[in-house]
Amino acid sequence: MLITRTAALRAAFTQIRAQTSILVQRLSAEDCMVQSMPDASPIKWHLAHTSWFFETFVLAQALRDFKPFDPAYRMLFNSYYVGVGERHPRPMRSVLSRPGLDEVRAYRAHVEHGIDTLLARGMLKAEQLDLIELGLHHEQQHQELILTDLKHHLWCNPLHPAFHDRSPVQPAAVPPQRWLRFSGGLAEIGRPATGFAFDNEGPRHGMWLQPYELATRPVSNAEYQAFIEDGGYRQPQLWLSDGWDCVVREGWQAPLYWLEDGTSHFTLAGEQPLPPHAPVCHLSYYEAEAYARWAGARLPSEAEWEHAAGTVWPPGPDEGNFLEDAIFAPCASASEGLAQCFGDVWEWTGSAYLPYPGFRPACGAVGEYNGKFMINQMVLRGGSCATPRHHIRPSYRNFFPPSARWQFSGVRLARDAQST
Amino acid sequence: MLITRTAALRAAFTQIRAQTSILVQRLSAEDCMVQSMPDASPIKWHLAHTSWFFETFVLAQALRDFKPFDPAYRMLFNSYYVGVGERHPRPMRSVLSRPGLDEVRAYRAHVEHGIDTLLARGMLKAEQLDLIELGLHHEQQHQELILTDLKHHLWCNPLHPAFHDRSPVQPAAVPPQRWLRFSGGLAEIGRPATGFAFDNEGPRHGMWLQPYELATRPVSNAEYQAFIEDGGYRQPQLWLSDGWDCVVREGWQAPLYWLEDGTSHFTLAGEQPLPPHAPVCHLSYYEAEAYARWAGARLPSEAEWEHAAGTVWPPGPDEGNFLEDAIFAPCASASEGLAQCFGDVWEWTGSAYLPYPGFRPACGAVGEYNGKFMINQMVLRGGSCATPRHHIRPSYRNFFPPSARWQFSGVRLARDAQST
Amino acid sequence: MLITRTAALRAAFTQIRAQTSILVQRLSAEDCMVQSMPDASPIKWHLAHTSWFFETFVLAQALRDFKPFDPAYRMLFNSYYVGVGERHPRPMRSVLSRPGLDEVRAYRAHVEHGIDTLLARGMLKAEQLDLIELGLHHEQQHQELILTDLKHHLWCNPLHPAFHDRSPVQPAAVPPQRWLRFSGGLAEIGRPATGFAFDNEGPRHGMWLQPYELATRPVSNAEYQAFIEDGGYRQPQLWLSDGWDCVVREGWQAPLYWLEDGTSHFTLAGEQPLPPHAPVCHLSYYEAEAYARWAGARLPSEAEWEHAAGTVWPPGPDEGNFLEDAIFAPCASASEGLAQCFGDVWEWTGSAYLPYPGFRPACGAVGEYNGKFMINQMVLRGGSCATPRHHIRPSYRNFFPPSARWQFSGVRLARDAQST
Amino acid sequence: MLITRTAALRAAFTQIRAQTSILVQRLSAEDCMVQSMPDASPIKWHLAHTSWFFETFVLAQALRDFKPFDPAYRMLFNSYYVGVGERHPRPMRSVLSRPGLDEVRAYRAHVEHGIDTLLARGMLKAEQLDLIELGLHHEQQHQELILTDLKHHLWCNPLHPAFHDRSPVQPAAVPPQRWLRFSGGLAEIGRPATGFAFDNEGPRHGMWLQPYELATRPVSNAEYQAFIEDGGYRQPQLWLSDGWDCVVREGWQAPLYWLEDGTSHFTLAGEQPLPPHAPVCHLSYYEAEAYARWAGARLPSEAEWEHAAGTVWPPGPDEGNFLEDAIFAPCASASEGLAQCFGDVWEWTGSAYLPYPGFRPACGAVGEYNGKFMINQMVLRGGSCATPRHHIRPSYRNFFPPSARWQFSGVRLARDAQST
Repeated sequence: MLITRTAALRAAFTQIRAQTSILVQRLSAEDCMVQSMPDASPIKWHLAHTSWFFETFVLAQALRDFKPFDPAYRMLFNSYYVGVGERHPRPMRSVLSRPGLDEVRAYRAHVEHGIDTLLARGMLKAEQLDLIELGLHHEQQHQELILTDLKHHLWCNPLHPAFHDRSPVQPAAVPPQRWLRFSGGLAEIGRPATGFAFDNEGPRHGMWLQPYELATRPVSNAEYQAFIEDGGYRQPQLWLSDGWDCVVREGWQAPLYWLEDGTSHFTLAGEQPLPPHAPVCHLSYYEAEAYARWAGARLPSEAEWEHAAGTVWPPGPDEGNFLEDAIFAPCASASEGLAQCFGDVWEWTGSAYLPYPGFRPACGAVGEYNGKFMINQMVLRGGSCATPRHHIRPSYRNFFPPSARWQFSGVRLARDAQST
Repeated sequence: MLITRTAALRAAFTQIRAQTSILVQRLSAEDCMVQSMPDASPIKWHLAHTSWFFETFVLAQALRDFKPFDPAYRMLFNSYYVGVGERHPRPMRSVLSRPGLDEVRAYRAHVEHGIDTLLARGMLKAEQLDLIELGLHHEQQHQELILTDLKHHLWCNPLHPAFHDRSPVQPAAVPPQRWLRFSGGLAEIGRPATGFAFDNEGPRHGMWLQPYELATRPVSNAEYQAFIEDGGYRQPQLWLSDGWDCVVREGWQAPLYWLEDGTSHFTLAGEQPLPPHAPVCHLSYYEAEAYARWAGARLPSEAEWEHAAGTVWPPGPDEGNFLEDAIFAPCASASEGLAQCFGDVWEWTGSAYLPYPGFRPACGAVGEYNGKFMINQMVLRGGSCATPRHHIRPSYRNFFPPSARWQFSGVRLARDAQST
Repeated sequence: MLITRTAALRAAFTQIRAQTSILVQRLSAEDCMVQSMPDASPIKWHLAHTSWFFETFVLAQALRDFKPFDPAYRMLFNSYYVGVGERHPRPMRSVLSRPGLDEVRAYRAHVEHGIDTLLARGMLKAEQLDLIELGLHHEQQHQELILTDLKHHLWCNPLHPAFHDRSPVQPAAVPPQRWLRFSGGLAEIGRPATGFAFDNEGPRHGMWLQPYELATRPVSNAEYQAFIEDGGYRQPQLWLSDGWDCVVREGWQAPLYWLEDGTSHFTLAGEQPLPPHAPVCHLSYYEAEAYARWAGARLPSEAEWEHAAGTVWPPGPDEGNFLEDAIFAPCASASEGLAQCFGDVWEWTGSAYLPYPGFRPACGAVGEYNGKFMINQMVLRGGSCATPRHHIRPSYRNFFPPSARWQFSGVRLARDAQST
Repeated sequence: MLITRTAALRAAFTQIRAQTSILVQRLSAEDCMVQSMPDASPIKWHLAHTSWFFETFVLAQALRDFKPFDPAYRMLFNSYYVGVGERHPRPMRSVLSRPGLDEVRAYRAHVEHGIDTLLARGMLKAEQLDLIELGLHHEQQHQELILTDLKHHLWCNPLHPAFHDRSPVQPAAVPPQRWLRFSGGLAEIGRPATGFAFDNEGPRHGMWLQPYELATRPVSNAEYQAFIEDGGYRQPQLWLSDGWDCVVREGWQAPLYWLEDGTSHFTLAGEQPLPPHAPVCHLSYYEAEAYARWAGARLPSEAEWEHAAGTVWPPGPDEGNFLEDAIFAPCASASEGLAQCFGDVWEWTGSAYLPYPGFRPACGAVGEYNGKFMINQMVLRGGSCATPRHHIRPSYRNFFPPSARWQFSGVRLARDAQST
């Protein structure tokens, strides 16, 4: 049984690490240096940090004669684990021209060899296998961040260079949004009994839900455009107070990456016409919430979302727009029913990111993974066009501050069940 | 029936407005000018704004031939109601030497005469009576803010002047903290069917609670001191990430108003010895949460708190330390059982301040009262030594950002029910 | 001889201290509390600080049995003398409701009695008389600051209240600006051999001047208006780089206190029509310098200014618009020749505020008076409508950062002598 | 005659451009991406901007059929010339991964070919030759900035990587500092009649100097260490007020790049022992000025400096430590007399950077080169170990804000002539 798990992990390790390499293979060393804002990181840093994770939490623990690839990396590529020691200051990550990308690639290879050797030997304890599995999910999170940080970086370059040249075919028409009714009651929420989940997804627990309705699909660009044209960004009454402050301070007039003409936007394939039926994307929580108010609706709670999304899980192999589709932009869908829960855009919920009842973080430094961020953030659900297909699940809790816009974040409407 | 309500409101109006005047009667015009930080307001501004509320939302609506006391006040004393129009910028409130305190007192008298005349005539519609009732609860909130803002202002004066000279007799010993078990299940939460409540307390709704335990009383100064002595302010692992940033940035080493000797603190009665058994006070959410982690416990959710506090509601006439007791500092209690839920200190909960399922703000500008602040804040429950006795109730939701410390905010521990 | 000086100082002390009291006599305690920006101070603070100066530098030194009026004042009303000890933080001066204005008035009376007694006894040493004389010039500087800080405070109040109701009669026409030629050469600059001067005015020294020309009068509002209408605030080429950054960051479109209509401005007599021929006022150095560039001229150096102004010194008793005229606004002048050098508006020079060759600050804490500010500031000359008549002299060096606008600061043009 | 000048310029152009290439030849593309603070620029940006200068001010003017290498470069590599049009925001220069270093090198080659062709044809007008000459001096300035920005960048990397491995041999002993007397009088200051000079060095003009004394050499590390050990960084009385604010805010305890042990420092050759007799370096104006006060001396004025340095100009071919010596660090000197005026360290003067009497900036956008920065900066003189040998001259005026420390800036003492 343990052997089987080991073999599966070994294959996953190879595949997922390779996927990271493929993702960045056409980028230059210079491209991998850029940090366009403190919230983003250079791609080189992502490549090193995901290796640091395996080296620090697996190799350094499992190898009796462990020698670090470079002792300085322990500090350089530590993101936020105070239990591990000092960190290089986050906003200064772009200053690290040394180690160079070649050296970071050698570091990746070194760590991969180490982990693979351990897995090949098959002598790892369950806790060590758990940490490798955690490291793989961690790597997948950084695959998505590589794309979102890269998009912001290319946007900040006045040349607006493209990362790739694949543009999706968008359908000319899509079904209108409809409301689906859920009867509520006592719902089970949180990580299922089997399969990987982050600590923040547990424990599974009951939630009492009022009857509610969920939109069949995310809000589209065309629908959001109507909000803008109706003066959405000029009416403080539509906004949370902090949100309106943000609108004024940042001069927001449209979602991030929309160009001034209002009919095109910047994508990883460069400037493109805005597809009217594709989900609107790169919204802050404030914008999602204001839109919902304007539309006479509200955001779903994370429990409502999870309860509903569980009914369409898992998506079929042809469904969903994920990282592997290599479009890296949300697409319109012609599906009927509860559509696009997984992939395309993360959906802001109206739930604050807080511990579930009975939550316990893992022991040791790895316990800092999620728990210490449970304040001042809101939960998003469902994954995006930049999320690896096998990374997402109904109980998955993503989280960002309400002002964040550089993720592939959109909105699906909810409302209290209408009496009939 | 309406007449009865009118008469009751008229008496309450007279009593509550007088209470505000009594509260500030010994302060000079200069004392009433100070704004010691943008989050606080000058007392003169509180006096004017609470009158503005009645003038704007009642007199201006109910009087056919309404003339404003001074047309400029509509803007000067508008706090945050964009539906009413422009506002004087909050951080600049201390610049308003004109109108002077005498003029603001005349404004108060003018508004009081107007409201009293309306109530005496007995011709007001239910919605207008609702707004007067809302205005009285609003006035009571500002009575508490007058005290918290005054405390901060006197603290910022290096002379540390006292506002009054009454010091409470603190008991020499108190019962040890014990755990009380609540079995959970489906609990009804939110505003009851009758009696006043703010819009944010409704609608009443079901919440599924896991079995939990609540401490018999708030954490005391002596208990919090142990946390400090154990290095609580020096160990990042005990803190939420944003909380630790706050500790470092602000140089926190103890609760607000503690003096450097660690054995005394600043109160509205000047510098005083720290009473070991009194509830610790002027904690941020970050400190409350870190303390709970250090103590192997957690904060209660607001539903847990409300469910438990309902079992001891209402407090007897001799119970509780409220504004009317004129101590203006939390006191130790010798009570057994679930003690000090009401009065003494607001208790941070682990719940974000978000709309209840089915929440609808009131129509018009008064709908900005609560709803637009439902982001980036945490809920506190139970009232404090600066809360008017008849202002509090089990369903009452107070809210502040997690870094706020100038309110009378403390902490009561909770934990998951222990298996026996 | 010493006795004569003592008697003269005693009379001056009485007169100058009384002038301060008269200046503020119609202001309320609330008016005297306001600090509208960190660069300004509450009037109550000015009243206390000018007394602190005499108490600290004279009474505490000269009295064998000196007892402070209140030991806390040493810190509360210390402006910036690190040699004296701790200071209350400047931006927090408006928090000092205690001591109240009455107490500060008692402090003033106490200090006045003390100084007067010392002077009456006639036993003071020359150094002590020097410090009293310095204290009187210091008091006069604060008389001007009381007016400039008050103007800013009343401006920040949306009611734009007036301090007084005297408006000057402005002439309907004035002589056109002409150029006066000065032949340059080796000029003597700095404090004369006799009479009071601040340390920063010395030592007297030679300066080699090229032939230059100076405008007969300061630039008028009408002339400055032409600069605005020609797009002066929209053309970065006209500005120093730091100045343009300031224009953009602060949104400057006209001098401080000009109303949006472009034809009126705020004065200490409330909103008034802009007098076209009066000197333009409340300019930053950046604006003065940009105007000069636009006009094909430049600012005078302080040596050029002093050399020229010496030729019209002293002004006749009917000449000049000073604090004693109680107009508190610059006026147009019908004078021919080199006019308005003294009074009306301070004139920005193109000279940085730096020590003269051989400059030595005074010994002890009083040496901090001027010298430590000799960086990042530009020199202004000539006094203003808020300067006491007997406070100014040709060698007087005023100084402010180039972005400061709340002083009565204007501009007189200069240029290199034109070949004929 | 013009032909001769053209030929000389052609040779200089080839040599100076090659020197830039050689300087950076061992740096990777990643090294050339880093911008460690807004005041510094990526090396790639320096390489492009110096070519942009020639393309914009020479090629675009002189070629009838001019086509830009890339039209976007006009904005991307414009530093601060508003007359040329839009600029990419300075703090965002590190975001430009595209164009890559290879493309920038191609840009350099393209521009070099263009200029060389023009010079080979020999048909350029004098004004065009002037602009090429200006461009070469501009290029030399950026050679120094490449080194200072690189040093800051490598310092910000916790690995403290070295740029090169040459360490100078420092003499074990040096002559003690002595004072040299200059008798003052009317001195001629500013650009000489012949030879290149920036516009800010003229016009040449008379200055009246008091008799003064100048130290034979710059202050050494050992001498500055005595200042530190005497509590120099802990005594506000030694500092200008703005300087002390800087010390507190930035936590300064030693010059930039000194390591905490107080006996070593970071150099472009990595961490090295602090050479006691070498000139102290990387001082702000505030530190230089405070040191001088502590030492009972003062900074020289720029006129005093220039007058004295003229007596030892030009340095012999074996004298001076310049960029070409490839040490990139100041060295001790065993010279007697007025030593080290040129090379080693820039010497802060006590003079503000302001226009000389009669100063006129050049016409057109190139007039923005110097004049618009004449505010809020202090003058430095003499060049440094990172200045090209043929770039410096006695009249050369360098300038930086008083808080700047990342240049090779040191201090030479002056004092008023002592009576004998």
